[in-house]
Amino acid sequence: MKPINDRVVVKPAPAEEKTAGGIIVPDTAKEKPQRGEVIAVGPGKEGNAMTVSTGDIVLYGKYAGQELKHEGQDLLIMREDDILIIL
Amino acid sequence: MKPINDRVVVKPAPAEEKTAGGIIVPDTAKEKPQRGEVIAVGPGKEGNAMTVSTGDIVLYGKYAGQELKHEGQDLLIMREDDILIIL
Amino acid sequence: MKPINDRVVVKPAPAEEKTAGGIIVPDTAKEKPQRGEVIAVGPGKEGNAMTVSTGDIVLYGKYAGQELKHEGQDLLIMREDDILIIL
Amino acid sequence: MKPINDRVVVKPAPAEEKTAGGIIVPDTAKEKPQRGEVIAVGPGKEGNAMTVSTGDIVLYGKYAGQELKHEGQDLLIMREDDILIIL
Amino acid sequence: MKPINDRVVVKPAPAEEKTAGGIIVPDTAKEKPQRGEVIAVGPGKEGNAMTVSTGDIVLYGKYAGQELKHEGQDLLIMREDDILIIL
Amino acid sequence: MKPINDRVVVKPAPAEEKTAGGIIVPDTAKEKPQRGEVIAVGPGKEGNAMTVSTGDIVLYGKYAGQELKHEGQDLLIMREDDILIIL
Amino acid sequence: MKPINDRVVVKPAPAEEKTAGGIIVPDTAKEKPQRGEVIAVGPGKEGNAMTVSTGDIVLYGKYAGQELKHEGQDLLIMREDDILIIL
Repeated sequence: MKPINDRVVVKPAPAEEKTAGGIIVPDTAKEKPQRGEVIAVGPGKEGNAMTVSTGDIVLYGKYAGQELKHEGQDLLIMREDDILIIL
Repeated sequence: MKPINDRVVVKPAPAEEKTAGGIIVPDTAKEKPQRGEVIAVGPGKEGNAMTVSTGDIVLYGKYAGQELKHEGQDLLIMREDDILIIL
Repeated sequence: MKPINDRVVVKPAPAEEKTAGGIIVPDTAKEKPQRGEVIAVGPGKEGNAMTVSTGDIVLYGKYAGQELKHEGQDLLIMREDDILIIL
Repeated sequence: MKPINDRVVVKPAPAEEKTAGGIIVPDTAKEKPQRGEVIAVGPGKEGNAMTVSTGDIVLYGKYAGQELKHEGQDLLIMREDDILIIL
Repeated sequence: MKPINDRVVVKPAPAEEKTAGGIIVPDTAKEKPQRGEVIAVGPGKEGNAMTVSTGDIVLYGKYAGQELKHEGQDLLIMREDDILIIL
Repeated sequence: MKPINDRVVVKPAPAEEKTAGGIIVPDTAKEKPQRGEVIAVGPGKEGNAMTVSTGDIVLYGKYAGQELKHEGQDLLIMREDDILIIL
Repeated sequence: MKPINDRVVVKPAPAEEKTAGGIIVPDTAKEKPQRGEVIAVGPGKEGNAMTVSTGDIVLYGKYAGQELKHEGQDLLIMREDDILIIL
């Protein structure tokens, strides 16, 4: 599974309200960042290297990416710049 | 058959609801990715090399590309960046 | 006849519904690609070389280009990127 | 008379309906290309050289350029990219 | 915690109306700059180095960034260019 | 008086309807080019050199630039690209 | 006080209607340029050096910049390109 250009495949974490010592998205945020694991990374676009790697746990905007199902998994394909932060 | 710049010719896979161990697009997705085989690849645009190759099985956005019929085949011409992922 | 920048002069093929073993644009396509022969090619824009050459048979979008008549011929001037594919 | 950047001064040809063996703009074209002679050429913009030269007979879009009168002549100042073709 | 591209994580200072010899945002400003401390800095975007460093006290536009909670802290993720000034 | 980037200071010529052997803007032109003298030139923007020099007589679009009064003179500050031609 | 990228901190001059031999903005100008002193200059953006220096007296558009108060002073943060001219 090889994303094109600067695209990244992310496996979203199951929704959770609280994690011990982890990230808690405030209830009032209109566009809550989501958490997931990077499972595939494209080669980069126009000669710019990628920052994320497979296995990274990342936060991304709520509406980032396009859904697909692969071998029973719900995955997202998004551009690297839709990712906000690597935890 | 030689696409211009960063264009790619894709032969769409026949529509299917389920594949054993393969990609299943969820029913609720508004813009379902489609699956096809790359059959021709352009030289790239403004000096940027292409990532996809002839024979690659790819996913692309539902409304990507322009239809044409060639020797009885229904094909699509799209830009490489309209392709999301190489399976 | 020397097109400016990335422009190309195309001589459209006469409209035809069917060709033996050739390209048939499906009736349902809203924006049917058209077929023509390249008869003049510009030097390229901002240092990017051109891909098409004089004599190439090409497909291009239905509304691509601007019409002109030259020595009795109906021709089109378009940008190279309006061309989809070289057959 | 020295145009700035990628600008070109064109002396429009008098309107004519027909020329022997020359360019005839079809009556049905909504935006007919016009014909004129280049009489001054700018140095180019951001390091990109100019293609047209003084004396070139060119076609350009009907609404291209800005009018001015110089020593009794009606002239047009336009960007080189508003020119479609050198005849 | 590693921001992507040109993103920066900022810990907002608690709202205050006045500081001795410090920054006071005028009441009449429609979009008051906010003050915070940079706690994580991305690698930069497309080869451009970053200017801010961890520990910098910065001003940023009122609506800059996206909120997240990390280990009980309210944080903001924003692009470096959303930061106005390092104090 | 040193303009920023690609800006130029122009002293507009007094409005005149006719000049002997000079530029006459046709009455029907909706946006008449104006004439003036360049009195200050910026260093250029992003490494691109300037074409106009102090003392040049130029034409520029009617609505180009921003007015200011300096030592009793009515002047205009505009970008070099708002200038059409050096006479 | 270190502005980010191409930003500049300006201390606006007190409003005045007339200055002897100085700049007088005409009453009829819709967007009057304002006058101020540059008190801090950013490092530049994407490798382009800055033109203004600390201590420069500059004119800038009326609505340029964002207000802040620093040690009792009313200041403006703006991009260098919002500055029109160095006097």
